Amino acid sequence: MDVASAVKSMLAVRVYQDRPIADEVVTRIVEAARLTGSSRNRQDWDFVVVRSRDTLQKLGTLASTGPFIADAALAIAVVVPDAPVGYIDGARAAQDMMLVAWGEGIGSNWVGNMNKPEIKALLGIPAEKMVLTVIPFGYPAKKVGAGRKERKPLAEIAHDETFGVAYSG
Amino acid sequence: MDVASAVKSMLAVRVYQDRPIADEVVTRIVEAARLTGSSRNRQDWDFVVVRSRDTLQKLGTLASTGPFIADAALAIAVVVPDAPVGYIDGARAAQDMMLVAWGEGIGSNWVGNMNKPEIKALLGIPAEKMVLTVIPFGYPAKKVGAGRKERKPLAEIAHDETFGVAYSG
Repeated sequence: MDVASAVKSMLAVRVYQDRPIADEVVTRIVEAARLTGSSRNRQDWDFVVVRSRDTLQKLGTLASTGPFIADAALAIAVVVPDAPVGYIDGARAAQDMMLVAWGEGIGSNWVGNMNKPEIKALLGIPAEKMVLTVIPFGYPAKKVGAGRKERKPLAEIAHDETFGVAYSG
Repeated sequence: MDVASAVKSMLAVRVYQDRPIADEVVTRIVEAARLTGSSRNRQDWDFVVVRSRDTLQKLGTLASTGPFIADAALAIAVVVPDAPVGYIDGARAAQDMMLVAWGEGIGSNWVGNMNKPEIKALLGIPAEKMVLTVIPFGYPAKKVGAGRKERKPLAEIAHDETFGVAYSG
């Protein structure tokens, strides 16, 4: 899938088929994170790859906004320093994983509010690190439309040279 | 360009050709940000599109880590709330813009440390908002290699089910 098409069409997917993701595809998704650019190329990040149904179900129970993790084929916890650079680098790596998965026909969804002691204990994550997100991945249960999205118009969020001057192309 | 190839090959580019970026390509880059997913679909972000050479030069002078903005054809300031969600959503939108630009043959580089009063004044950005990054874009001056990157090996950053157990595929 073309990169522009992937960005345009990617939607949050929260209902998954009961179908595993092949190991080599999982590796391609994690590789996308590994290859992402980071501040000063520090690569201060870790990715915990979860495929165990038991752990996925426990994550779903612990995720206040993402119970659907329980039904995913895969979830990846993005673990970074609890600092601005952690948010930034981790979000960039997560976005790359989600896009590469989307190009493989796999949906995902950003699940936040996961930096909890119970989740760290479950995954063995050191207390001082931050769980930025746990992203569930799976083949979408429903046919995914071609990029129907509710978004603000460009002129509302894009500015031409100066904030407040609507971008017009 | 295929989405996986874009993620794999994208490198930071800091030296640009003296060649403008067509308006419709600029719009495609900003559209990539507009179409990005955000927390609860809030889309609480603004993008200031800078093509004026005078402003680009001033940004280059103000950017402690990005003097090369002065020579870019385009720079886009990513403006978000000064909060974790701002870092996350802004970084995801920035990554999408950089990838779509890369697919068009255009290089970019994340420039941080830009949340300064002088930069807000220059671009008319409200004081309470955060300038997450100003990203310069331009056609690379040198031929870009096919994804030569210095990155940690996968087993060092990816974990299998539990933090500390190296991912092996």
